[in-house]
Amino acid sequence: MYAVENLGDNIAACSEIPNLQYAEFSKDLRFELESGKRFGPIKIAFKTFGKLNSEKNNVILIFPTLTATPQVAGEKIKGKEFPGWWKDIVGEGKAIDTKKFFVICTDHFGGCYGSTGPGSRNPDTGKPYGMKFPPFFLKDVIKCVWELLQQQKIEKLHSVIGGSLGGLLALEFVALHKNAAKNAIILGASHKISAQSIALNHIARQAIMLDPAWKNGNYYGKEFPEKGLSIARQIGHISYLNPGILEQKFGREEVGKFKHFVSLSMQYQVESYLNHQGEKFCKRFDPNTYIYLSKAIDSFDIEKEFGSVQNAFAGTKTVFTSIAISSDVLFPAKDSEEMNSLLQKAGAKSELYIVESEKGHDAIFLENEEIGKMIRKTLSN
Amino acid sequence: MYAVENLGDNIAACSEIPNLQYAEFSKDLRFELESGKRFGPIKIAFKTFGKLNSEKNNVILIFPTLTATPQVAGEKIKGKEFPGWWKDIVGEGKAIDTKKFFVICTDHFGGCYGSTGPGSRNPDTGKPYGMKFPPFFLKDVIKCVWELLQQQKIEKLHSVIGGSLGGLLALEFVALHKNAAKNAIILGASHKISAQSIALNHIARQAIMLDPAWKNGNYYGKEFPEKGLSIARQIGHISYLNPGILEQKFGREEVGKFKHFVSLSMQYQVESYLNHQGEKFCKRFDPNTYIYLSKAIDSFDIEKEFGSVQNAFAGTKTVFTSIAISSDVLFPAKDSEEMNSLLQKAGAKSELYIVESEKGHDAIFLENEEIGKMIRKTLSN
Repeated sequence: MYAVENLGDNIAACSEIPNLQYAEFSKDLRFELESGKRFGPIKIAFKTFGKLNSEKNNVILIFPTLTATPQVAGEKIKGKEFPGWWKDIVGEGKAIDTKKFFVICTDHFGGCYGSTGPGSRNPDTGKPYGMKFPPFFLKDVIKCVWELLQQQKIEKLHSVIGGSLGGLLALEFVALHKNAAKNAIILGASHKISAQSIALNHIARQAIMLDPAWKNGNYYGKEFPEKGLSIARQIGHISYLNPGILEQKFGREEVGKFKHFVSLSMQYQVESYLNHQGEKFCKRFDPNTYIYLSKAIDSFDIEKEFGSVQNAFAGTKTVFTSIAISSDVLFPAKDSEEMNSLLQKAGAKSELYIVESEKGHDAIFLENEEIGKMIRKTLSN
Repeated sequence: MYAVENLGDNIAACSEIPNLQYAEFSKDLRFELESGKRFGPIKIAFKTFGKLNSEKNNVILIFPTLTATPQVAGEKIKGKEFPGWWKDIVGEGKAIDTKKFFVICTDHFGGCYGSTGPGSRNPDTGKPYGMKFPPFFLKDVIKCVWELLQQQKIEKLHSVIGGSLGGLLALEFVALHKNAAKNAIILGASHKISAQSIALNHIARQAIMLDPAWKNGNYYGKEFPEKGLSIARQIGHISYLNPGILEQKFGREEVGKFKHFVSLSMQYQVESYLNHQGEKFCKRFDPNTYIYLSKAIDSFDIEKEFGSVQNAFAGTKTVFTSIAISSDVLFPAKDSEEMNSLLQKAGAKSELYIVESEKGHDAIFLENEEIGKMIRKTLSN
């Protein structure tokens, strides 16, 4: 019932995801990663919500963000609440209506919520892979999801949907399977990973690796490198928000009453907020997964992989809906505009909505009323 | 001749600053820090360029940035070149003409280029202070500079000038000594330290402290915490540049030829650039100084200290020239506009120039032609 199989002991407490299912494959190492390495066995954890109809044409695949679980919708099981990370959008009667649609939400290959990742036991050694886990790309993540769909005998999708990393994966999915999905809904993501994003991920990875508890990735069952992971998360949060919303939320508000600072310890609310976010994150995420997945994000490059954005999407029948946030500094709206225009040039049907919000990248999961309407409209087509 | 007195052995190699002078005081602990602590002895290192005229009315005080040395202008001594960090602006015939003006450039209290700081010997223990150095504020930095000026029997300044932290110090100087300076030139700085700046400094300090070599600040003469300081510097660089210029300079350019990445090591030029900046910085800066000075910056709050910006500058005869960069994300031009307006409301003469440049905060030391003209114009008054 719980996704503890591949987690280091340190974060087992966060692994209470009920009714997780698994697609298992490549015990014979038939699965070849983009790097050329044959790798297995592989398990991909996923959850489903709603029911598959007899025509098998009501499937919506939702890709999580870098750090979200397969628990996309909320559930109540035996009196216990399991809140979904996108509960205002996904559920019975919601914009992604689980009375109508059969929703599948996966844990990424390399992840830490049940799928094979750096914290999984390496069958050759009996120990967790750690940094011996093979480098991989978003294409590999999609190839694993495709295996899962094959096992479920699902060939057509009503929609692929995702925000942030989830949006990149939806793009990669369509580029690799041009006629599998009727719709693609991409939130806060585009064909471009900016130099600043690479820079921030680079710094975040260094912080994890600097933590003496990281021990070259061999911390499973030992001290957890929480300080390094906390710094990585804090760097992430600065890009998920933006200077304006940080100012509005925190300004120079202090934690306590200081004449001036009297020690070098935490003084401002923004510092307290970041510390809190970092601490919370350490209860639910594997630092090695952060290293591998952030590197896979940096390496996402549709132009390099397919020659051009137009090449990647030429001939697709998938209809694209992009939703960008006006104040997003991680995936700026102007890059979504460029992508929308390139998709149209590639002959694809593509629409872009820009949500006017001050809340930065995070707004893709906050401006639910407006975004819910856009998603409803797309899904009704 | 060299400023090695107060440096840990690890960074002595960078301390070759010729003809450094010192103001020494508070051997009797008469100097009281803002925190209430009496502290001494204090040495403030400084350099001078040009000659003090007999009227003593040609003095320009230049405050360095967080990390710059007192070597503001270039020199050639016994055939050896000592490049100045602002050599295109300060020197013979330059906008700040050392044939005409007597330029003083100090090392900050708490610094690592000759002034008393965390790396100085604590006379009580014979060992470097480390984290036993007292917390201090920008007001303390200015009080030390004022002592230096008293010792030099300088009562009036033609101008106080500084960029970034140097600009904050110029503001603090005028607020504390309303009639001492005829002009104040503030580049890339305003009365506001943003929540995002505090957030970035907070993360940078954590990275330094996470380095196992940091050892609670007691690394002098031992292994240097270079990885932590490098991360701190890299975080700084992201804010000194901006997303646009990072994209323009680096985009997704790779260090070598990769099909995709085949390992988790450095792949993109932006990563190589950041690593290089971090490494260079470790040859010339003290991590503990970074911790203390960045905290003093976070605590800079004219409104809190003086009640309001208008209170702080009401009645001053100093004429303000602010120079802001259109693309600065650390000290946005809109904050300089607000400051200019508040200064005018306080009755001060104040002008703002906004330099249209894509280069971000760093442009205050790059757009030298345009900025040189503005400085020349101000100094000719």
